[in-house]
Amino acid sequence: MITVLSGGVGAARLLHALSDVIAPSEIAAVVNVGDDVVLHGLTICPDLDTITYTLAGLNNDELGWGLRGETWRVMSELEELGGEAWFRLGDRDLATHLYRSQRLSEGATKTDVAKDLAERLGVAVRLLPVTNDTVTTEFDTTLGRLSFQEYFVRHHHDVTVRAIEFVGADSAHATPEVLDALREASRLVIAPSNPLISIDPILQIPGVREIVAERREDVVAVSPLIRGEALKGPAARLLGELGYDISTVGVVDFYEGLVGTWIIDEADAALAEEIRQRGVHVEVTTTVMAEADNAERLAKAVLS
Amino acid sequence: MITVLSGGVGAARLLHALSDVIAPSEIAAVVNVGDDVVLHGLTICPDLDTITYTLAGLNNDELGWGLRGETWRVMSELEELGGEAWFRLGDRDLATHLYRSQRLSEGATKTDVAKDLAERLGVAVRLLPVTNDTVTTEFDTTLGRLSFQEYFVRHHHDVTVRAIEFVGADSAHATPEVLDALREASRLVIAPSNPLISIDPILQIPGVREIVAERREDVVAVSPLIRGEALKGPAARLLGELGYDISTVGVVDFYEGLVGTWIIDEADAALAEEIRQRGVHVEVTTTVMAEADNAERLAKAVLS
Repeated sequence: MITVLSGGVGAARLLHALSDVIAPSEIAAVVNVGDDVVLHGLTICPDLDTITYTLAGLNNDELGWGLRGETWRVMSELEELGGEAWFRLGDRDLATHLYRSQRLSEGATKTDVAKDLAERLGVAVRLLPVTNDTVTTEFDTTLGRLSFQEYFVRHHHDVTVRAIEFVGADSAHATPEVLDALREASRLVIAPSNPLISIDPILQIPGVREIVAERREDVVAVSPLIRGEALKGPAARLLGELGYDISTVGVVDFYEGLVGTWIIDEADAALAEEIRQRGVHVEVTTTVMAEADNAERLAKAVLS
Repeated sequence: MITVLSGGVGAARLLHALSDVIAPSEIAAVVNVGDDVVLHGLTICPDLDTITYTLAGLNNDELGWGLRGETWRVMSELEELGGEAWFRLGDRDLATHLYRSQRLSEGATKTDVAKDLAERLGVAVRLLPVTNDTVTTEFDTTLGRLSFQEYFVRHHHDVTVRAIEFVGADSAHATPEVLDALREASRLVIAPSNPLISIDPILQIPGVREIVAERREDVVAVSPLIRGEALKGPAARLLGELGYDISTVGVVDFYEGLVGTWIIDEADAALAEEIRQRGVHVEVTTTVMAEADNAERLAKAVLS
């Protein structure tokens, strides 16, 4: 059993690659819920959905998010009505949110819903939201306080962040399934997701950081940065804004005390020695998963 | 100004006919909210929506409900996921519910939303939900207690009803707009909607029944039954199950003390004398509004 701390797109790709190398049922993903949002009355879990869709082979490669074969009738009508349509919800995607929202209103948990959606879509990787309590990522920015989706989608993360807060994290409870998956896995993996807004809100749930730190020697992390840049999203910019070096070294420092082995990209090979001096193992390989060969190589490096 | 106590389809047709005869801005509809439902996290107001769509000329004549040009992608995907899809929400219709749910979550009232949707869709009739509080129609049936939509849609009202309860009506407040519209109209009209489940939940909101009774001489009601049958829906069956005569006479008795003038269908002309003996005026005309000429004739009868 291996357990992967997971955000959205980067984690989804790594999980996909891993499940080509070992049995999917041997993999658990502990998934961030800090960017979950209630919009139009619907409970939306972007990271869980991205992973589910990707592992089901339903991800939309052209858009880079959402479902393939998507249509946009509801959004187009919502715009006609003058409604808020900046958060694009496809018709197919909406079915997921309607399903989840109905189940939650009937007393199911996000854990239950993630399990049932995965089963329905033929996904064997265990998808575990880190908590069933509400944790809300908020940004203190030069435009004022923004919710996650206002920051990320509405403003295209093109605004300076002064601080990030995970409201509710302090009093949230990691689920028993998550605590078991963290304790019982032979290896813990930190996916190449955004450290500050995808992985940190997982680590901030009481108990999680402590287990990861205790198991440090079993923790493998894949750097989300290559030559100081993320493939996607604001990881590099946020590291800089919050006082870290804008490089894989900055990421390593951010996760200080939590990681035994780092997997960094060939393009960052020159940083390996500096990172090793921090008392961790370093493996150098291709971390870009665009091609199947690369993805398999990375998956094998994570598992070796 | 005339004010029409309104359920869904029958009221929508009457309002449409009336607005061909007098200026729509001179008409207010006080609309039932007792069959409003929260489903999949979305707040759905079937009667308000039916009226809005019909007055906007967007009603789906083939289905007899919903919007024309409707598509069903979300529902079809929801069924794929194993979700509850018995309450059919078209893609176009869903935009209305997303719009309303988002506005309500931001602090708007149903009154605000009804006004803004009407404006957006070019509807000049004033659409006034009777209350912004939650009133929930529940049925005590031979299958147990059922919510409105379980009774109406899921079981196609094909189950015996022992009692109807409007949960929350006692403590609900009619909106100031509704109280004004009831007091200031030169004429109050009771639409040919279901007396027991469309009009009664309006009358049960404290203050409404009292104003209607005081203004009895100005109240014109259109019978929803013709030869003991409703054009649509369970009005006849429910009257019988709850101890009323299954005829326009039964409807007249149900509204005892509230109506000055009855408009009944030609097919029920033989009942006119029996109804007059109850101390009310009776006008006989065609109450079926399927053809434009008939609708206009009925509208003129209501206004004369």
